[in-house]
Amino acid sequence: MQFHLNGFHDGDPSLSEAAKGRSEFQGDIPGELDVLIIGSGPAGLTLAAQLASYPNISTRIVEQKSGPMKRGQADGISCRSMEMFNAFGFADQVMKEGYWVNETTFWSPDPEDKEKIVRIGRVQDVEDGLSEMPHIILNQARVHDMYLDIMHKSPSRLDVDYGLTMIDLKVDPQGGDYPVTVTLKHTEEEAEGSEKTVQARYVVGCDGARSAVRNAIGRELKGDYAYQAWGVMDVLAVTDFPDFRFKTIIKSANEGSILIIPREGGYLVRIYVELDQLKQRGESKDITLERVISASNNIFKPYSIDVKDVGWWSVYEVGHSITDKFDDVPDGQAADRLPHVFIAGDACHTHSAKAGQGMNVSMGDTFNLGWKLISVLNGKSAPELLHSYSNERQAVAQDLIDFDHRWARIMSAPPEEHDETNNESPLFQKHFIEHSRFTAGLSVKYRSSALTGKDTWQNLASGFEIGTRFHSAPVIRLGDAKRVHIGDTITADTRWHLYAFSGSKNPSGPDSQISKLCDYLEHDPNSPILKHNPKGDDVDSVISICGIFQQHHHKLDFESLPSLLKPLKGCFQIKDYEKIFCPDLKTGDDIFDMRGINREKGCIVTVRPDQYVAHILPLDAYDELAKFFSGFLLDKA
Amino acid sequence: MQFHLNGFHDGDPSLSEAAKGRSEFQGDIPGELDVLIIGSGPAGLTLAAQLASYPNISTRIVEQKSGPMKRGQADGISCRSMEMFNAFGFADQVMKEGYWVNETTFWSPDPEDKEKIVRIGRVQDVEDGLSEMPHIILNQARVHDMYLDIMHKSPSRLDVDYGLTMIDLKVDPQGGDYPVTVTLKHTEEEAEGSEKTVQARYVVGCDGARSAVRNAIGRELKGDYAYQAWGVMDVLAVTDFPDFRFKTIIKSANEGSILIIPREGGYLVRIYVELDQLKQRGESKDITLERVISASNNIFKPYSIDVKDVGWWSVYEVGHSITDKFDDVPDGQAADRLPHVFIAGDACHTHSAKAGQGMNVSMGDTFNLGWKLISVLNGKSAPELLHSYSNERQAVAQDLIDFDHRWARIMSAPPEEHDETNNESPLFQKHFIEHSRFTAGLSVKYRSSALTGKDTWQNLASGFEIGTRFHSAPVIRLGDAKRVHIGDTITADTRWHLYAFSGSKNPSGPDSQISKLCDYLEHDPNSPILKHNPKGDDVDSVISICGIFQQHHHKLDFESLPSLLKPLKGCFQIKDYEKIFCPDLKTGDDIFDMRGINREKGCIVTVRPDQYVAHILPLDAYDELAKFFSGFLLDKA
Repeated sequence: MQFHLNGFHDGDPSLSEAAKGRSEFQGDIPGELDVLIIGSGPAGLTLAAQLASYPNISTRIVEQKSGPMKRGQADGISCRSMEMFNAFGFADQVMKEGYWVNETTFWSPDPEDKEKIVRIGRVQDVEDGLSEMPHIILNQARVHDMYLDIMHKSPSRLDVDYGLTMIDLKVDPQGGDYPVTVTLKHTEEEAEGSEKTVQARYVVGCDGARSAVRNAIGRELKGDYAYQAWGVMDVLAVTDFPDFRFKTIIKSANEGSILIIPREGGYLVRIYVELDQLKQRGESKDITLERVISASNNIFKPYSIDVKDVGWWSVYEVGHSITDKFDDVPDGQAADRLPHVFIAGDACHTHSAKAGQGMNVSMGDTFNLGWKLISVLNGKSAPELLHSYSNERQAVAQDLIDFDHRWARIMSAPPEEHDETNNESPLFQKHFIEHSRFTAGLSVKYRSSALTGKDTWQNLASGFEIGTRFHSAPVIRLGDAKRVHIGDTITADTRWHLYAFSGSKNPSGPDSQISKLCDYLEHDPNSPILKHNPKGDDVDSVISICGIFQQHHHKLDFESLPSLLKPLKGCFQIKDYEKIFCPDLKTGDDIFDMRGINREKGCIVTVRPDQYVAHILPLDAYDELAKFFSGFLLDKA
Repeated sequence: MQFHLNGFHDGDPSLSEAAKGRSEFQGDIPGELDVLIIGSGPAGLTLAAQLASYPNISTRIVEQKSGPMKRGQADGISCRSMEMFNAFGFADQVMKEGYWVNETTFWSPDPEDKEKIVRIGRVQDVEDGLSEMPHIILNQARVHDMYLDIMHKSPSRLDVDYGLTMIDLKVDPQGGDYPVTVTLKHTEEEAEGSEKTVQARYVVGCDGARSAVRNAIGRELKGDYAYQAWGVMDVLAVTDFPDFRFKTIIKSANEGSILIIPREGGYLVRIYVELDQLKQRGESKDITLERVISASNNIFKPYSIDVKDVGWWSVYEVGHSITDKFDDVPDGQAADRLPHVFIAGDACHTHSAKAGQGMNVSMGDTFNLGWKLISVLNGKSAPELLHSYSNERQAVAQDLIDFDHRWARIMSAPPEEHDETNNESPLFQKHFIEHSRFTAGLSVKYRSSALTGKDTWQNLASGFEIGTRFHSAPVIRLGDAKRVHIGDTITADTRWHLYAFSGSKNPSGPDSQISKLCDYLEHDPNSPILKHNPKGDDVDSVISICGIFQQHHHKLDFESLPSLLKPLKGCFQIKDYEKIFCPDLKTGDDIFDMRGINREKGCIVTVRPDQYVAHILPLDAYDELAKFFSGFLLDKA
């Protein structure tokens, strides 16, 4: 955390000063808005938490419920979402409160007595080195609380407007600055039934599987259903089943399957129980809690479970669905028409609960959309950038639906008999490992586009695959010798990041490649920093550069390094000491080795505001670098 | 964190339900109190935060200032204090906000040109393995905020009563249940000057170096002064000195010394500057900020510092002082009289700022006192226990004063010339390393007493030295395979902890030593658990036992282990899965090796509520164990 740049301030450093005119009471929704978000689930809040940092952008988020969620149904937080939470600054809080999925265990019928289950395998849930973050289980409502806290502490003092539902939305592509007209209706108390019309530049529908926004722009969720009912319950229970606090997959011989997901706090456990094959949708609605518990006990044999308290339970039918486009621009009209309405999360794709994707993909949607909207509204990018949201995220959602299908088939396949004399691990354990990148949220790869460079120089940094998330690694910060994660340099703002990895030549002399690169970036009229950074703003406010050198941090002289790596910032022009890094040679976790950096040549790794690797270029590819940024950043006014 | 034991609860798990009759508005101070704390600095708040968990104990804390501290002068947080913060649950927040002291560097006059300084050494600030916690710099006011947050979220909803100063205190040893009479005076606004009398069972003076409580019980701070003025300033500055964000000690040839302590947030830096030798106390009061800055620049040569903004500055004179006893019982009367008034922190010992001890020792005082007061007030211990506070903490303070003297001499010794051809590290770097256990707060060793056993069986666990703080180590929790720190099992309550380390015999059979120990503890009429645990309370509410086994966690069957290690707790009698541990054999951090546990015999390590090792006993020393606890715990009513 960096703070006190413009002088010492009392109190909580995460509490920003309120912008002019903003206070705890945000008042009535104005008639004109830059961004209106419909729905305050994970997708809506991830977006609102980003926009809240920009009080110059007028944003509101409405929710038809009467107040914040108290207990959510989603609970799985992937490594990838944790990395994103880290950019928002609350990953540590989630790690503290949540259950850590450390190992997953697998149970099947005992070959000696098929009425009994036996453990046939166990596997580390997140393989070593996959992410610096763990896989966590935490009640969705707590994630909401953390986003709400960011919003409350932001300069905007943004809060959700509860008790408002959207009843109409119209887009007039020729409608000037505020082309979207939305009618909201109060659902609460004295104002109940009264309506309000808002004109917005952009509307984002995060309003769930029954999305009114999606319907209003004429899009449709298309999906398929497995005609399979599952029960789910959060229980306090006593059992002799030994893996009750492990993520566990149990397949019994004849009674169906169970998925155990231990919950936060050390006691509560979520159990998914396979119930009946259904003849038609909706048939599961009469299934009782007693039925779900007794089905569990049948599967658990020879163990049993004595349910003492049920926090929540439900029965659902497995299904997946997706919308073919995530904005309001009709197919084939992208060249002539700009998007003004977007849909995100369950509004455009739904997943089966057990693959643990729903909340994660939804948040990923609006983490993709947020920086784009802000860049456009702040005049840093042209509005054409916004087409990329649907392009990028629809493909991701489709991939995950395909994964979901595969995983559902694996879960519902008949149990295998485990042969103790055979050293092979059981098949569903193998499948589990194969799919671990999906479960961890790390299978996303954006295709080549204006935002994602070609892989011409991929071999300069083989461990930073273009289009995938920037895979952090530990480094030593030169300025204070702290071991940190290089990924911690990215916060949830709209900045782009250049990571300049040094080649083998003398790094600190004025002739070194990094010095020359910094010189170009700082002084050349064609430099993307000079071209795109608003005058008067800190030099790293649009594109931030960090240098990573190969030497031990005792062998590198801070003061001799290029000035762009230790820029003077803020009203007093104070030096930033947190942009220069060395490998951790003490532990041997050398980022150059870990991420396959070409030690002779070095390289520039360009990273998007949403933590995805955008491009890899040689240290002297100045023109390519400038051209890349010109593809989506406007020249400064 | 463990929660949801008695059913799922919405919201922040650290927010306790308010006890009956408690709310955000705690109302007027009642005429009778169990505990009255005078002063809301680190000592007072550390005590209040412990007492706040017990709404049955009536506690108030008064402060003469009008509101919470905004910017404090103390900033160094030792590893030991961080371990204590971990028991309170906010170490992670401090790690997130604070500056990490990673390396300390040493500068002396350049032998070639004595007008210039050169770096002559650097050293890792906290040696590997000394503590699982870092050495942190964070504004004292933020530590206050975190304690206040605990108090606000406690069942008591305790808050500080600001604007109240103590003007009189009298103790009548024969005065019945509430033998201390305190007169408080309002210092604020409409109530200014009005007085209030309170009768208290116990009063704790945490009211600083000018303590009115200390004066009222006739104790005196005795000390000595170095007649040396130092300047201190928190600055935003630009400099070419390369170690500006390292803890750095500079000794110039003729201009004096500097100590640099970088502050939280990445920009702010605290600089201590040696100024004049004084002829008499108080002589430094005319020294100006300009003088402090120009003295710095003289020492920094050939570097310079351009101060852009000063958050806070002061000039002080080095001194140390101590009181000979920390309670109101006159010397030699301990057998006949019980203590009712205590003093803590600066009220009974002051240190020089640069040794970084002040705030840490103060918090250590009341972390020692807190559990004792609570145990006595809750009827678990006889009030004689309270004599141990002064006995234990006065000795600690005296040790630290001695260290402080040594350290002050080292700091003010003339600079040495560093001979580059000599591989020896410079002398003050050597001294720094020698004293690192003091700086880290880890030099405290309580002497043998009712609370601290003899070292008869110390060799069974050589790494857990009796009387010193329980040195945590990583372990794998069997119930969910999470890598945790064994020390995380201790929270800031009044519980005692038994860590039963298994011997080499079959650990999980009913004949194993741990099984027999658990059987004794659970069923034998002489068991300290049966004798001291109130009926109806959870079995681990007074003495909690954890088992640590030598096997890989995959080789140990959870369900076969003794029931006392997986007790049923709470209103639903739910199993606790967080009391059984195995070594981390994957990383090789094996707690048995790290802490010198006798692998053949195993042992019981007994740990006090304040995280100090109380005793080490063989696994079958049932009588000794029972006798030890009978030394300070009452039989249950």
